[in-house]
Amino acid sequence: MGRIRIVLYGVGAVGGLIAKYLLTKDGAEIVGAIDVAEEKVGEDLGRVLNIGKSVGVIISNDVDDVLSKTRPNIVVHATASYLVDVFPQLAQILKHKVNVVSTCEELSYPYFSKPQLAEKLDILDKMHKSTIIGTGINPGFLMDTLVITLTAVCQKIRKIKAVRIMNAATRRTPFQKKIGAGLSLEKFQKAIENGFITGHVGLEQSVSMIAAALAWKLESVRTSPVQPLIADKPVRSEAIDVKQGHVAGLKQEAKGYRNGKEAIALEFQAYIGASEEYDSITIKGVPNVNQKIMPCVHGDISTVAVVVNTIPKIINAPPGLVTMKDLPVPSATTVNMVNFLL
Amino acid sequence: MGRIRIVLYGVGAVGGLIAKYLLTKDGAEIVGAIDVAEEKVGEDLGRVLNIGKSVGVIISNDVDDVLSKTRPNIVVHATASYLVDVFPQLAQILKHKVNVVSTCEELSYPYFSKPQLAEKLDILDKMHKSTIIGTGINPGFLMDTLVITLTAVCQKIRKIKAVRIMNAATRRTPFQKKIGAGLSLEKFQKAIENGFITGHVGLEQSVSMIAAALAWKLESVRTSPVQPLIADKPVRSEAIDVKQGHVAGLKQEAKGYRNGKEAIALEFQAYIGASEEYDSITIKGVPNVNQKIMPCVHGDISTVAVVVNTIPKIINAPPGLVTMKDLPVPSATTVNMVNFLL
Repeated sequence: MGRIRIVLYGVGAVGGLIAKYLLTKDGAEIVGAIDVAEEKVGEDLGRVLNIGKSVGVIISNDVDDVLSKTRPNIVVHATASYLVDVFPQLAQILKHKVNVVSTCEELSYPYFSKPQLAEKLDILDKMHKSTIIGTGINPGFLMDTLVITLTAVCQKIRKIKAVRIMNAATRRTPFQKKIGAGLSLEKFQKAIENGFITGHVGLEQSVSMIAAALAWKLESVRTSPVQPLIADKPVRSEAIDVKQGHVAGLKQEAKGYRNGKEAIALEFQAYIGASEEYDSITIKGVPNVNQKIMPCVHGDISTVAVVVNTIPKIINAPPGLVTMKDLPVPSATTVNMVNFLL
Repeated sequence: MGRIRIVLYGVGAVGGLIAKYLLTKDGAEIVGAIDVAEEKVGEDLGRVLNIGKSVGVIISNDVDDVLSKTRPNIVVHATASYLVDVFPQLAQILKHKVNVVSTCEELSYPYFSKPQLAEKLDILDKMHKSTIIGTGINPGFLMDTLVITLTAVCQKIRKIKAVRIMNAATRRTPFQKKIGAGLSLEKFQKAIENGFITGHVGLEQSVSMIAAALAWKLESVRTSPVQPLIADKPVRSEAIDVKQGHVAGLKQEAKGYRNGKEAIALEFQAYIGASEEYDSITIKGVPNVNQKIMPCVHGDISTVAVVVNTIPKIINAPPGLVTMKDLPVPSATTVNMVNFLL
């Protein structure tokens, strides 16, 4: 293969970052781009990405036309977080017998919340001899794949805890708004109610993927409602001022129970003013494992990396719906991507 | 399958620890044990392990007899560090069409130092439809597989460094002696010359496995000679007193060069009196990654874990010589091991 032929499906915030990275990569070629936004359709991808040059790919809203004309090796899909929303898109892609790497959070481990849709996707994949995965930095890596990897050093495990703490001030402004930074408590609650603040999607999927890798049968997976984190002093980012007593960001937890006990606990915090940013994994067992990545891994940069680095592994994989735990050890693709194809 | 049938080949220090752990595991059965030591042959495995009971497995030095009578699913092989020493043992095992997980350090990535033996092993495996791997905590996990895993979050990588620092006082007395703890500098040099101190085996293999996973072509892999670490004050373990100015342990380094620059650097230190024990991985790239496991992962406990946790993955794998980077994401097997078979 000369180059890996890629179609982008979704040229939004994350899809756009993936596109910019792919344009720099040897052995990868963006052969088509799909988006439904009126202001993007008919435009050159380079103009929409605002990179100061055309790339010769016109964004289209006609999925069948793009896929049948370009015959890509893989579609990079980045549109929405929930499987119910993206299932029809994925089903349409799969008819073209093409592999998919998606940023859809629920797809990272769909067997927990949407087992029937997961089964349908697996059947479609096998029928069309294609492979599909949902991945990203989180869910997809930090709070599931990396946790699973570290369990390999253990003879026994009592409890697993993973914590991700992000200083939202260092992130995109839309992200800061999506976590409610700067809102009063009242406005935060309203934003939760009207669905503007959804919180991080994927903690239940990560808990479930860890349990599946360990063949642990969980009695339940429980998530706390999204909790506001209140600033105890004024804090600010370039874009947002947070008054004392207002919301600096949010916190979420998910827990998996086994044999009546908390066996897997995941905690996610993103707020303006976090003094320490880190990703930690603690395993209580034989031996104990205390691991920390500090500062925490950058969400946007590394979601792009994980998605792109997964492309050759998906092209190499047998047909079907897969999750990160089923693939060979994750790895970077900093040289010509064709080198990673079997 | 009711249980995974396992034959132990080598009931020494590490093989004995693996045996003890396997005896506690649901879904695993030790059906045979092989060793050449006169004092072990003919004895019950339980007596040799000193666990206060017989286990009904008599240690034999007749490899063909044990394997043809027991027909195991896998052999756990723990005899020696270098491939030239274990190759005849492995070839004899493979004739019985049985899978192998070995602690042989050089086998963790044999293509670097012994490409011809590696190729022969791969051919033998495929001929006999069996799978073979060399693994353990290091080489096999901490300074290669885990490093490779973390690269997945990167878009670009300039340099990778992994450091392992162990306080030898917390380890087995034979290990403390093998790193020269307590010796004068003169005696340390003699022990190096006469081969009693060999140092850690596997750094070059880890460098090479990382490079292979990244499809990096290295111009060279260089290792420093084993260097003594001198005690700047008296230090002691339960077993050994180290005088000021004497050797507390040792240090080793291996480096991989790419495009004229140091691209991969591994550093291993084991000495009595280390104030901080840790395993760290630093990636300079986009993004930077600073990861630390503290205290460092316990070598013996986790070599046993990694070897045993790899058993079902090897039984599931297609025939051939494989390395950790080729297998699905590593993971623990804390429940019935049969649950992990495909």
